[in-house]
Amino acid sequence: MRDAYHDELDGLSRSMVEMTNLCGSAMSRATTALLDADLVLAESVIAADEEVDRLYREVEASAFDLLARQQPVASDLRTLVTSLRMVADLERMGDLALHVAKVARRRYPSSAVPPELRSTILQMGHAAEEIVAKAGSCIAGRDLTLAAELERDDDVMDELHRKLFSVILDDAWTGGVEAAIDITLAGRYSERFADHAVSVARRVVYLVTGERVVA
Amino acid sequence: MRDAYHDELDGLSRSMVEMTNLCGSAMSRATTALLDADLVLAESVIAADEEVDRLYREVEASAFDLLARQQPVASDLRTLVTSLRMVADLERMGDLALHVAKVARRRYPSSAVPPELRSTILQMGHAAEEIVAKAGSCIAGRDLTLAAELERDDDVMDELHRKLFSVILDDAWTGGVEAAIDITLAGRYSERFADHAVSVARRVVYLVTGERVVA
Repeated sequence: MRDAYHDELDGLSRSMVEMTNLCGSAMSRATTALLDADLVLAESVIAADEEVDRLYREVEASAFDLLARQQPVASDLRTLVTSLRMVADLERMGDLALHVAKVARRRYPSSAVPPELRSTILQMGHAAEEIVAKAGSCIAGRDLTLAAELERDDDVMDELHRKLFSVILDDAWTGGVEAAIDITLAGRYSERFADHAVSVARRVVYLVTGERVVA
Repeated sequence: MRDAYHDELDGLSRSMVEMTNLCGSAMSRATTALLDADLVLAESVIAADEEVDRLYREVEASAFDLLARQQPVASDLRTLVTSLRMVADLERMGDLALHVAKVARRRYPSSAVPPELRSTILQMGHAAEEIVAKAGSCIAGRDLTLAAELERDDDVMDELHRKLFSVILDDAWTGGVEAAIDITLAGRYSERFADHAVSVARRVVYLVTGERVVA
C-alpha cells in the first residue's frame, strides 16, 4: 500500500516534468511565431495549451485524491501541498506562452517584432526555454544547485526585459505605438513565465530543505 | 477539539476577507496615485503590501498546520486546500495593486494617465475595487449569487480594458509611446487583479457546490 502511494507521488512528479516540457516547447514556438509572423505556428501553440490544462487537472485531481485517501503527514503532506502549487505555476506558464502566440496572431501577417528588437526577443525566448527546462530538471532530480542557477538565469531575463523598454523608450524608436504595446505585452508574458519557473524551483528547494527561499 | 478546529477554519476565512479589504484599498489608492501623480500615496500602497504578504504567510501556515494536525477529510479537506489557493490569488492581487503604484511612482511628477483616458482608468479602478469587495463578501457569506454577479462585473472590466487599447491605437492618439506603455501595463495589472477576484469567487462556488466553474 505504502509503495503504491509513493508510485502515485512519482507519477505526479513525472506529469509536472512533462508539463515543463510542453511549456518550454510552447514558449519556443510562440517566440518563433512572433518573430516570423507564422500564423500556423501561433495557432498550434494556442491549441496545444489544452494538453497542459489537461495535465493540470489530472495532477490536481490525483493530489487531492491522495490527500483524502492517505491522510499523509510530514514530508508526504508537504510534497502534496507543494505539488498543488507547482502545478498551478505550470498551468499559468502554459497560459503565458499562449498569450505570446496570441500577440503573434493578432499582428499577422505583420511581425509584432521590429528589426531592432529581434535579437532581444529571441534571447528572451531562449532564456525562457532554458529556465523552464531547468525547472523540469529541478523537479525530476530535486536538484538544489540547479535551483540556484535558475535564480541567476532569471536575473538575465530581467535584464533583457529592461533592455526592451530602453529600446522602445529611446528617442530613436520609430516603431510606433502599436509595436510598442505588442512588445510591452509579449515582454511581460515572457518575464512572468520565467518568474513562475523560479517559483517552481523555490518550491523544490522548500520540499528538499523545508526552508523557504525569500526573493 | 472539533470546535476549536472550526474556529481556526473561520479564522482563515476572516483573514482572507481582511486581505480583500486591503487589496481593494490598495487598488483604489494606486489608481488615485496614478491619476493624480501622487508620490506619497503611491509609496503608501507599496509599503502596505507587506501586510497583505504577512496575512498570506499566516493563512498559509495555519492551513498547513491544520492539514497536518487534523487530517481532515471530505468538505474540511476541500476547504483547506481551496483556502491555500484563494490566499495565493489574494497575495497576487496585492502585488498587482503594488505594480500599479509603481507605474505612478516611475512617472512622477508627471501623471501616467493622459486626459483622454482618465475616465476609463478611473472606471477600471472602481470596477476593481467593487469586484474585490464582492469577492470578500463571497468568502464571508459563501454567497453564490454574488459569485455570479462577479463574473458579469469582470466582463465590464474586460470591456474597459479593450477600450484602453482602442484609444491608444487610434490615429488620434498623441500621447506618445511612453504613456502607451504605462497604460498598457497599468491596464493589464487591473485586468489581472479582477481575474484573480473572479478566481476567488469560483473557488467559493467550488467549496459550496463541489462543482468547478469553467470559464
